[in-house]
Formats: sequence, structure tokens, C-alpha cells
Amino acid sequence: MIKVGLLGAGRIGNVHAKSIVAHAGCQLVAVSDVNLAAAEKLAAAYGAAAKTSQEIVADPSIDAVLIATSTDTHADLIEAAAKAGKAVLCEKPVDLSLERALACNEAVSKLGRPVMIGFNRRFDPNFAALKQSYDNGDIGKGELLSITSFDPAPPPVAYINVSGGLFRDMAIHDFDMACWIFGAAPVAVTAIGSSIVDPAIGAAGDVDTAVITLHYADGRLAVIKNSRRAVYGYDQRIELLGSTGLLQAGNVLENTVNKITTAGATSAKPEYFFLERYMKAYEAEWRAFVGAVETGGQYPVTLQDGVNALAVAEAATLSWKTGQTVRLENGRPVASA
Amino acid sequence: MIKVGLLGAGRIGNVHAKSIVAHAGCQLVAVSDVNLAAAEKLAAAYGAAAKTSQEIVADPSIDAVLIATSTDTHADLIEAAAKAGKAVLCEKPVDLSLERALACNEAVSKLGRPVMIGFNRRFDPNFAALKQSYDNGDIGKGELLSITSFDPAPPPVAYINVSGGLFRDMAIHDFDMACWIFGAAPVAVTAIGSSIVDPAIGAAGDVDTAVITLHYADGRLAVIKNSRRAVYGYDQRIELLGSTGLLQAGNVLENTVNKITTAGATSAKPEYFFLERYMKAYEAEWRAFVGAVETGGQYPVTLQDGVNALAVAEAATLSWKTGQTVRLENGRPVASA
Amino acid sequence: MIKVGLLGAGRIGNVHAKSIVAHAGCQLVAVSDVNLAAAEKLAAAYGAAAKTSQEIVADPSIDAVLIATSTDTHADLIEAAAKAGKAVLCEKPVDLSLERALACNEAVSKLGRPVMIGFNRRFDPNFAALKQSYDNGDIGKGELLSITSFDPAPPPVAYINVSGGLFRDMAIHDFDMACWIFGAAPVAVTAIGSSIVDPAIGAAGDVDTAVITLHYADGRLAVIKNSRRAVYGYDQRIELLGSTGLLQAGNVLENTVNKITTAGATSAKPEYFFLERYMKAYEAEWRAFVGAVETGGQYPVTLQDGVNALAVAEAATLSWKTGQTVRLENGRPVASA
Amino acid sequence: MIKVGLLGAGRIGNVHAKSIVAHAGCQLVAVSDVNLAAAEKLAAAYGAAAKTSQEIVADPSIDAVLIATSTDTHADLIEAAAKAGKAVLCEKPVDLSLERALACNEAVSKLGRPVMIGFNRRFDPNFAALKQSYDNGDIGKGELLSITSFDPAPPPVAYINVSGGLFRDMAIHDFDMACWIFGAAPVAVTAIGSSIVDPAIGAAGDVDTAVITLHYADGRLAVIKNSRRAVYGYDQRIELLGSTGLLQAGNVLENTVNKITTAGATSAKPEYFFLERYMKAYEAEWRAFVGAVETGGQYPVTLQDGVNALAVAEAATLSWKTGQTVRLENGRPVASA
Repeated sequence: MIKVGLLGAGRIGNVHAKSIVAHAGCQLVAVSDVNLAAAEKLAAAYGAAAKTSQEIVADPSIDAVLIATSTDTHADLIEAAAKAGKAVLCEKPVDLSLERALACNEAVSKLGRPVMIGFNRRFDPNFAALKQSYDNGDIGKGELLSITSFDPAPPPVAYINVSGGLFRDMAIHDFDMACWIFGAAPVAVTAIGSSIVDPAIGAAGDVDTAVITLHYADGRLAVIKNSRRAVYGYDQRIELLGSTGLLQAGNVLENTVNKITTAGATSAKPEYFFLERYMKAYEAEWRAFVGAVETGGQYPVTLQDGVNALAVAEAATLSWKTGQTVRLENGRPVASA
Repeated sequence: MIKVGLLGAGRIGNVHAKSIVAHAGCQLVAVSDVNLAAAEKLAAAYGAAAKTSQEIVADPSIDAVLIATSTDTHADLIEAAAKAGKAVLCEKPVDLSLERALACNEAVSKLGRPVMIGFNRRFDPNFAALKQSYDNGDIGKGELLSITSFDPAPPPVAYINVSGGLFRDMAIHDFDMACWIFGAAPVAVTAIGSSIVDPAIGAAGDVDTAVITLHYADGRLAVIKNSRRAVYGYDQRIELLGSTGLLQAGNVLENTVNKITTAGATSAKPEYFFLERYMKAYEAEWRAFVGAVETGGQYPVTLQDGVNALAVAEAATLSWKTGQTVRLENGRPVASA
Repeated sequence: MIKVGLLGAGRIGNVHAKSIVAHAGCQLVAVSDVNLAAAEKLAAAYGAAAKTSQEIVADPSIDAVLIATSTDTHADLIEAAAKAGKAVLCEKPVDLSLERALACNEAVSKLGRPVMIGFNRRFDPNFAALKQSYDNGDIGKGELLSITSFDPAPPPVAYINVSGGLFRDMAIHDFDMACWIFGAAPVAVTAIGSSIVDPAIGAAGDVDTAVITLHYADGRLAVIKNSRRAVYGYDQRIELLGSTGLLQAGNVLENTVNKITTAGATSAKPEYFFLERYMKAYEAEWRAFVGAVETGGQYPVTLQDGVNALAVAEAATLSWKTGQTVRLENGRPVASA
Repeated sequence: MIKVGLLGAGRIGNVHAKSIVAHAGCQLVAVSDVNLAAAEKLAAAYGAAAKTSQEIVADPSIDAVLIATSTDTHADLIEAAAKAGKAVLCEKPVDLSLERALACNEAVSKLGRPVMIGFNRRFDPNFAALKQSYDNGDIGKGELLSITSFDPAPPPVAYINVSGGLFRDMAIHDFDMACWIFGAAPVAVTAIGSSIVDPAIGAAGDVDTAVITLHYADGRLAVIKNSRRAVYGYDQRIELLGSTGLLQAGNVLENTVNKITTAGATSAKPEYFFLERYMKAYEAEWRAFVGAVETGGQYPVTLQDGVNALAVAEAATLSWKTGQTVRLENGRPVASA
């Protein structure tokens, strides 16, 4: 029985808490949050104790921690928890700063304590089935990957201001999907953005609509389409063209009902947002983490994966700002001369 | 170049005329109709001559006739044309009377002149692909066949009165589909009907909604669902459950557009009625007829097929009236003792 | 906090246990089973006590019981638990004997203690959405209901022998769906069966493939198609034709991936069986039961519903055996003269 | 009755010939081709005369010409036919050289004789329905357009060498679709290409896989994905994200059959290539041309449209070669300083 401390009792912390308590092989023993009342409420619901993050990290009886705090605390908590010998699953991103993430990765590597990063979409059953089929060779050699990734509604500008921008905040998931599916990081990035959904987002120095192309060393291309607003729900689809076929992973719909009248045939919308769409993914992510902890096996998502996605995000941001394609060398963006 | 006479210049005659003139291997030379003006108009449009049916049948320069006249004239015209040595394609049904159809079949058999009956649905590319897949053994042994066959709107009661009733007029197509797909005629029929769409149809002694089950000698079952009204269009689907899988042939939609909004995802309706849905089928039917004429090969639909479907229709009508399952013996319905 | 006793620790008991413990408003306190080891194992997994069914029913601290024992014990346990003042959710069927079920219903009615029957399919999100749309009037007046209900694989003949036959064991779910969707019990039943999947089933006096038509007083028809074997999975679909449209509730697929190659476009199969397909339904069923207990509201499925479905099953069995349509009068089947 | 001369009796000339003879309002009177035998064969099949292009253009009895000759002759024939007072429908592209196309447009404009360019995809019923829905305001303001346009198999390198390259030869259709749907030409183009399908294409100085982003003045973006090889057929899809929804126009499949076995659910591939997919579009294109000629109305596709698409193609080619975004000013590409 693995004893787990949960750092962070916000929206995503609550999602993870359910996965932890539902897992027969582990027990939620402690919860922390900067908002003490939130920690106490979540702890009480599941018979755990409310503590500070420091207390949890320092508690030798706790085997594993799940870091679901605010982004700016991730790197410090990863380092502290790894140092304390905990098994660590940390929400993405590692940090908004690539340099801080690289330093964190180096520090943790020296400790020889691998850390898992929570790129939940890798555990979505649909995307996982697409990846499996590709790895099986069902469509031959991959050539052109297309990711559609739209949020249902734009966040408030206050959030935009601290988000690191669309490329670091939203597209980072898609960058990880591309790296994961293609099994490699790209060598160059071309990012094009527009502020057409909400002028306030443009005024805040960010974009709300983007097309990002990733170039791979062997000629493969990946194109990512992002929008902050698809009013009909969370639009999360992947297509991969290969030398012998095409793979598509579609949206998960609210139900399977179809109504046909003189106005046409109407079926359900996609699930509204990530809590609905990726609930199964969060459960599977936790099972994968616990499985690796129990067996001493490798984590399916590493801190290096977190760093890679962040490097692509930084390159995309630079590409958008300069209007140039940006190369990635030694894991860092390099602007064209 | 096959010279063709078209008997009947009504709605379905006009459909066939297009297939005839579009075929590079034949020429439309004459058109007849009880309404002379209709024959003249259609003939003029395609450079043919308006004549009487008798003249066409008697004309030794005409190789083939397509009979698209009113049902009550079919059997007589089939016999006359076959006697005159014409290749004959006749619209379904052979006759509303099973006895007349049987007599016609016997007369034509004696002449040794096979005749093709126009069960157009066998030539629908979707149903033909389902049949091909079944015959390939893709789903093993057939067990349960389901046919959904709904018209978009009920006909006027005046038509109902001369139609022979739903089982002879509408379900006869579905009976032929079952016989064709299963490669045999059923041994018993259970028909259940209701007049729920339009009480006037019930008052006229007919039904507008029906469920008909065909029993096969080896235990296979076929269930046909009919309605005179599916407001969204012509609903024509087939499903076949077999020992190793299921085959489904779906509707043909007006277009492939899908619109997703907060109200759901809306795609197109099925094509509205048989002229839209089965246009390709009519063309393929004509090509098949001409191909058989040119090569001296067998017709893909025979007069016997027309008689078989009519016998099932008669059995269904009797089953509905008596509330009993009706057996078919030697091609004729036999009420239970 | 509702204290719950679970009677029965078999496959379905284990499914229900998960729903009970996952519900924040209740607590699983006791588990019974004729196989004591099974009860102990399940109880231990969730911190409950293993007891006999008698002890659970007699325990005044227990508020509610979920009966998931073998069918022949349902009616007795319902009566005992209702008498003891428990809230009761009992798995379907009430009993294999209509007479016993009627007696149970009468006994419980006298106590004034409503009991909920576990027709889980009513809580499937897809079927519930179809029902909601129909009740909203989206397709006008209902006319023709079609239920496709195929199991993935036939049970062993040993099971067939004690099952009550396909109509009581398998189709009973579909009879309840028809009664629920149409809001009424049928007035007559025509059942046609065949043993084509497995001759051993026929030899055991049962069928494995069936078409059952339900006749409603106002002319509506419902047709149910059953097969004990659809090798591709649990095929559970409903269609309802109405005066202004059609509603369809489709299968739930294993994932949303589509692979297109020269061999065609291949997508996922339906979920394999009821544990996969109806997991969400079981959770929703339990939430609905607890909600009614908490608020004192009406149960969404009553003992009368359980009796109605059983009466239809008995009528269907009689119809199949006699080859006649069987009427239902005063809730009992009446063979035609 | 409009008398038509067809210039060009190759593959696409044969397609157009069928549309011409099938149209009740016109008559095919003459056919030309550099290969005289081809012209004679096609003319004979439809009762027309084989002539030279010069003779057809000079024949005062001919009302309209359809130019389906090799690309390098288009501009000259357009100018000659317009000068001779013919109604002109010319296959795309106007020319491979933007300068020649601009000169042709200017020459024809001076004559006051509008010319129609054959961008057949505008007449595809699916794309036309998407455009109609967008113009109806069904999804609000357009934001992000995505065009998937894959050929089934790469052409031989000999063709690549004279094609003008992927952007002028293949993507030009997609550029026209974007201009048509958005009702405007873009202000800048970013093109990324790769030679991953066939190294011989790369060696010939061209690409076989591309991602092209079009920037619009108001912030709208359009992204086009091209591949010379989708082994499963002609993949032609369009998606448009708007402020209140999404529109999708999907592929046309070979049939509607779905086969479900333990290996999954398999349905048909897309139609294989343009002759299958766009047959209805070619017919509709011809009807639209004849309709405009008969009524003196405006052509739905103008010579200016042909020039616009070519300008985007030139900009895309330049963008790919320079690795820079290329602006379009006054209808001409302008490389960044």
C-alpha cells in the first residue's frame, strides 16, 4: 500500500484525489494547499490529514507525492520531493522558464531519482490507441501529423497575463503529443498566431488562434491548430498520415443519440472540457504512475519530456514574435541569423 | 447498337429514358403511353418516335422493350413482347394477382424467352456491396436479416385503393431483397400491421406501419419494418447478423457536411425519395440488362423472382388479415388449419 | 450517511459494491453470500463485515439493502427486507414465475413500502437521452420502436436450463425498455424464435435468435431483435420512429480511432459486454436509488415495472410455443381461443 | 440551343464531353486535339466533327468553347476565343506564369468579355453546402479554415518536372477554395514543404508534402495540408471554425456498407480520385456555365479568380524557397526585406 501526499487542493487536485482514493494499491494520507481551508475540506472528504507541503515532503512515512500546485512552485517542489526520496508525479509544465526547467532536470538527474510529468493526454484511451496502431506499423512510415486542439472558451485576460502565453500554456500539451507520437523532438518550429477571438487577448500581447508547424530531421511534419474558443466544446483530435494509411482519433461525444428530422440529423457535441474528456486519462495516468512505483519500472513520461515540450513552446513563442522559423539545437531555440 | 422501345412515359419511364440514352450501346427509337402527349414529349426530347405499345411490340427493327406502364398491363405486355422475340425488362410487380403472375411466368417459360424484372434495389451500390461481402463469407453464416424501409410520405388514399395494399405495393421490394440476399424464398411469413400514420389508410382497409418476419427452412429469420412516413426522407437500410459478424448498408445522405454548434452536430438527411436514392441503381440495372442482352447471358433478376416476391406479399397480406403465421408451399401461401 | 447491506457477492454484486463505496452519501457496512469466502473477500476490500442475508435484514442499523443474489431468492428477500423497513433495490427479475412476482408485488404493496427494481439500461446515458428527447416531443408521436439487443456469446447450456429461457432471461430487459419508452405495457405479443446459433440451445428447448413484436392499444408497435451471439460485442441499440422524426441511440465503442488504408476504414468495436457498456448506468442507477431514499421521492423503477416486464416475457414464451399472438389482459397473458 | 466546341480530347476533355452532351440546352458540334486521332474518336462518339482549335475559334456558328488543352496553350486560346466573341470556360490554371496570366486577364478585360475558369471544386455539392452554411451565418464569423487535400498517388517525376511544382499544380485548387470560402485573397503566405513520400520528387526540386498557412488582413487564418500520396484514395476535406461553431465537409465514400467483426468495424474508403469524387462537380460546373451564358448572368468563377490563385501559388513557392513568410501586394508576391 503506497502512502500518498497530494500537494494542491484546487480543481486539478480534486480530480487527482479521486484517482488516488479509487486505486486499491494506495492511500491518500495528506493534502496541502496555500488555501488551508481547501486542503482541510479535501482531506476530510477522504479521511486524510491537512498539512503543509513542507510537512508532507519531510514525512518519511509518505512514499509518493502528487504535485498539483501553482506552476511557479513545481520545480522547487520536484527538487525537494526528489531529494527527500519520494516518488513524484508533477503536473505540467515543469516551469514557465526553460532555463529553470533545465536546471531542475539537471538537479534531479544528479539525484538519480526519475520524476513523472503529468501529460494526461498520453493516457487518453483514444490517443493511446492511435499511438499503439502507429507503433504497430499499421500505417507505415509517419509523414504528416495534424493536431486539432481547441478550448471551449477563452480564459479571462487576468489568466492570460500569467499564463506564459498560448504556446506555453495551451499548445504545450500538443507539443508533447507530437514528441510522443513521433518519438522525437522537432528540429525547427514555425508558429503563426492571430488574435481574432478576443481583441483583449491581443492587447495583452498574446494570440488566441494559432497554426504551428514542427519540422523533423527526417522530413516529417506536424501541424498544430489551436483556438481558445470552440463554442461547441473541447475539440481534441489527432490525424496521422503515413506511407500506407491514415489514423484518426476523434472527439468523445456526450452520448450516442442521433435525431433525424426535416432539419437534418443531429447528434451530440464533444464533451465540454478536460474534466469530462480526460477523466479516464487522469485515472489511467495515476494507474501508470503507481504501476511504475510498485514495480520499479520506468515512468511513461519523464522530466526530460517536460523540458522538451517547454523548449518547443519557447521556440514557438520566438517564431511567432519574429515571424521566422526557429531551429532547436541542443534542446534550446536558436533564432535564424 | 441495341434499338429500344420504351412502353410508358410517366415518372418512372422518364427515369429509364435517361439511362437508355446515356448508354453507348443502345438507342431509344420509340416511346408509347396511354397519354399520347406524354409519349410525344418524351420521344421528342431524345429524337425518338411516339408510337403505340402494339406498334412497338410489332416492330421487327426493335430489339428490346422496357415496360414501364401501369401494373395491370405488365403481364399482357410481357407475354406479347416475349412472343415477338424482344428482350424484355419489365418494372415490378409482374401483376397484383399471384395467379396472373404465375400464368405469365408459365407462358413465358414455354417460349423459352427469359424476362428481366426491374427490382432496382438489387443494383444499389450499397446493397450490392453488402450482398457481395456476405457472399464472400465475410460474416460467416447468415442468421438474422433486418430491413428498414420507410417512405418519406404516405400516398393519397386514392392510390392506396388501387395499390394492392402495403404488402404488395411497398413491402414487395423488401421481400425481393430478403429472397435475393438469402438466396431463397421463405417458408413462412408473419405480418403485423397498424394504421397509425393516417387513419384514412386504415379506413381504406390497409396499414401504414408494419413488421413482417420471414421464416427460412434452415432457421434463418428476416424482419422487415415498413412505414409509409419518415418525414426526414427515404429510409432504406439493411443489416445482416451472421455467425462471425454484422453487415450494415446505410442511407445515402444529401451531402457530407457536419455543423457543430452549442445545439449539437447536425449533418444531412437521407436523400428524399427513390428518384434521388436509386438513380445510380436504375443506371446500373439498365447496364446489367443491356450487358445480358449483348452477351446472351442470364438476367440478374428473373420473372420467377418477381413471382416469388409476389407470393410472399400475398402470404403477408393473408397473415395480417388472419393474425396467423402463413406457410408458403409450392410457391403459394397456405393458411394454417 | 446511508448504511447499506449488499446481499450477493458475485459478479454483479462486485459491480454494485463499487458504486456504493464511490457514493459520498452512503457507506457499505455488510456483505452476504451463499459462498461465505466470496462475501468475506468483498467485505474486506471495502472495510465492511461479512454476514448472512438474514443478519443484514435483521440489523436495525442498516438503512438499505441491495439484493444481488440468485433469482430464486429475490422475491423472498424483497418481502423480508421490505417488512424490516429497509429501502430495497433488487436486481431484475423479481422471479421467473409471474405468479410469484405478482404475489410479491401484492405483499409489498400492502406494506406500503415501495421497492426499486434494477433495470440498469434505463440509466444508460444514451438511452436516457433518447427517452428525454422523445418525452420532449422532438419526434412527435411515437409509432414504431426497434430494439436491437445481442449478447456477444451464448451462455453454456447449463445456464440456459435454469435461465427461464431467452424471453425471460435476456429479452426481459428489452421488454422493460419498451414499456419505459412508450410509458405503457403492450396489449399483445407475437414472438418468433429460432435456434440457429447453437443447436444445443434448441435441444434444451430454448431459442437463441428471436424477433418479438409488441402491440400497443393505440396502434404503436415495438419490435425487439435478440441474438445470443454477436461476436463483435454487446450490440445494444434503440430506434424510435415518430410522426416528425427518428431517434437512434447507438453503441458505445471501445475508442474513437479510425484507420484508413487500402483495405477500408476501420474503427473500434462496441464495448464487449454489460460490465463495460453499462458501468456508467450502474453508477447512475445507484445514485438514483440513493437520491430517492434521501429525499423520500419515488423510485424511478418500481416493483410493478418488474412484474410488467415479466408478464410480457411470459406472453412471449407462450406466443413462441403456440405460434400465436398472445394478448395481455389484467397483466396476464391470455392465449387466443 | 448552344453550340459548343471542345478544345482538347484528353482525359479531362472526355469528362467534359459527357457533361456537354448530357445537357439538354447545348450541343457538342466540334472537338479538337493536338492528337488528331483522339479528337476524331471523341467527336465520333457523340456525333460531332473533328477540327483544329483554330477552325473552332474561327467558326461563327459556334457559341461557346471549353478549353481543356495543355496548360501552356490556355492563355493564348482564352484570348483568341474571347476576341472571336465566344463564351469561354477554361480549365485551371490560366498559365504557370503569373505575369502571363495577368496579361491575359488584362487583354480579356479590355475586350469586356468575361471568361470562366474551371475550378471544379467550387461545384462539389459538399463544399458548396459548407460555403452556403457559412454564408448563411450558421457559424458566425470565420476564424480558422483547414483544408486537407491529398492525392492518392504521386505522379511520375516527368510530370513533376513540367508541373510548376506542388504549389502551382496541386495546391492551386486549395488556394482557390480558401479565396472562395473567405471571399478574399490572403495578404501573406507561409509555406513549408518536405520531400518524404518520394526522394525523386525532392531531387527534382519539388516537395510532396506541405503545410501552407494563409494570413488574412482581418486576422483570419487558413491552413492547407497537402500530400502527393494518401494510399486509401483522394482525401478532400474542409473544416471551418467560426465564432459560433464548426463546419466540416467530409469525403465521399465508395459505399455506405459497414462490416463489424472481431477485427473492428470496417467501412468504405473515399472515392479514389478526382474523376470519381468530382464527377457531380464537373456536371454542376457545366450547368452553371451554360446557365450564365443563357441568361447573360455573371460567371461564378472569373479569370481574376484564376489569377488570384496563381498569385498565392507563386507566393507559396517563394515562401518555401526562402523559408520566409511572403506578403501579397497588389496581387503580386513581395519577399520580406
